[in-house]
This record gives sequence, C-alpha cells and structure tokens, in this order.
Amino acid sequence: MTHQRTVTAHAGHQSLSFSREFDAPATLVFKAHTDAARIAHWTGPRGTQMTMREFDARTGGSWSYVISGEDGGEWGFHGSFHEVTAPSRIVQTFEFEGEPGHPTLEVLTFTDIGDSRSRIDGLSVFLSVEDRDAMLSGMDAGMDENFERLDELLTTNADA
Amino acid sequence: MTHQRTVTAHAGHQSLSFSREFDAPATLVFKAHTDAARIAHWTGPRGTQMTMREFDARTGGSWSYVISGEDGGEWGFHGSFHEVTAPSRIVQTFEFEGEPGHPTLEVLTFTDIGDSRSRIDGLSVFLSVEDRDAMLSGMDAGMDENFERLDELLTTNADA
Repeated sequence: MTHQRTVTAHAGHQSLSFSREFDAPATLVFKAHTDAARIAHWTGPRGTQMTMREFDARTGGSWSYVISGEDGGEWGFHGSFHEVTAPSRIVQTFEFEGEPGHPTLEVLTFTDIGDSRSRIDGLSVFLSVEDRDAMLSGMDAGMDENFERLDELLTTNADA
Repeated sequence: MTHQRTVTAHAGHQSLSFSREFDAPATLVFKAHTDAARIAHWTGPRGTQMTMREFDARTGGSWSYVISGEDGGEWGFHGSFHEVTAPSRIVQTFEFEGEPGHPTLEVLTFTDIGDSRSRIDGLSVFLSVEDRDAMLSGMDAGMDENFERLDELLTTNADA
C-alpha cells in the first residue's frame, strides 16, 4: 500500500506542515524516531550510510549525525531535542551543516488512528520565508524516500 | 544613558526581530547570557528571584529555570541550546511552561559596534502568527525591564 504524504505551505509564510500515515501504531513510529539504531535504518537517501555522532532523545538532549554517500560525499546535520514526550510528541531543532545559519524548529505529533495505524503531523518553522521556500523546492523526493524506508522498517520490525 | 530597543514585526508573519545596544563589548554581553549566575541577575521582573534547574550553555546543551515572585507565584521556562558560539551567536528554543505547546526558536547575534559598545540583534520565530501576536502584545515592558537590569549588571560588573 502506498501512503500519500500531504504538504501544506501558505505563500509568504515561514512554516510548512505535512502529514503522513503509517501501518503501525504511534508507539512504534515514535520509537523509530527516538532509537538511534532504528533512525539510522531509514534516514537519508537509499544507498547512503548514517553515522551517529551523538543521539540523546530526551527533553534537553541533542543529536548529530553524518550521512555518507557511496561516492564518498558526507553531509552533516545536528540539532537539539526541545521536547521528547513518548509516544506522542517530539520538538527539535534541525540544521544542515553544509549551509550553516539556517536552523529550523520542527514539531512532530504521533497519533493513533485505529486498526494499528497512526499518523505523523509535522510542522517546520524557518527563520525566513526564503529559507522555507528553499526547503520546499528540494524536500519532496527526499522526504518520500525516507518515509518509504520507514514503512519498510516498520513492516520488518513491527513488533520490536 | 537610555538605550532604545527596536522591535520589527511584520503583519501576518511568524517572527519578530529586535535590536538593542549596550555600553559593554560583545564578549561581556554574551557572558551575561551564558553564565548561570549572571543570567539570574537580570532575567525576570524586578523583585523576582530566578532559580536555575539546569543551565548548560553549549551547543547541544539545555536550560531550565523558575522565576519566583514575592507573592509566591512561580513561572517555569525551559529550552535547549541549538548553538552557542562565543562571543557572537546563540540559537536556542524557549517555552513558557504555563502555556505549554508554544515553543519558539530564538537567534541572538552579538556584535561589537566600537567604543567598547555592542548590539544584540534578536530574531524569534513562532509556530504560528497567533503565537507571535500573543507574544508581541505582552513582551514590551518585560523585555525593556530585563535589558535595563542587564545594563546595571554590565555597569557594576564591567570587567568581570
């Protein structure tokens, strides 16, 4: 089954929101976001490798990882966990180290919707409309690929 | 000398920016924001007491404090430090625990402007325009009082 991801981004605003359903309860989708080994399984384009530099998924903790491509390219990311409330809510900052100075604040809400399924509602706020628009133009394929990889992890690992 | 604080908030946007000059170099103004004892001296209304629950001013660290009023009232705040780069930049999250669910992302830039003076440029981004407008309506007096208290700390403690 393919799950449609929706994105909402009003012209002239500094935020975007998205929504995506999963064939797994919120507890497992949340765990896939807060367990270092699990998050490394689905984050980044296929064929890349994630190396955690730091991952402390609790309110007041922080995270940092590098995505390595097959061609030797490396992309670093880091942020902090403003709030981690299992299994329903993560508030975190996010910054791509290749373009420093453009951090974002992201709120992820995990909601059970019945039949052992759940939905993520995400809200990302940017320092400027320009930052938001730049992210919008590049995010679609990468985000869908990540969520498809997450679908696969949830299927193979549904009761872990 | 009185220093004017400017605030810029465009209608319909999710952010506000402010600017304030100080009679002290950026290094000292930055220190007053990243040293637990100093920050307790100037944050909160006059007559209140700040109690630090946690304060780790480094990239990936976090902070948490309570402001106690003379009448016994208590107001808790917490956030995380996305970036702390001495003496020029702090990126942090901020949430008032009395109204949970409305975190903000704040970027503070500290710039020397000559004659041992400096300026803070601040940018706060909110989850929604409504959150921004609610903050705008209440922030003015509190922010000015904080910065006046900071002026006093910088005067009495200029070479610390």
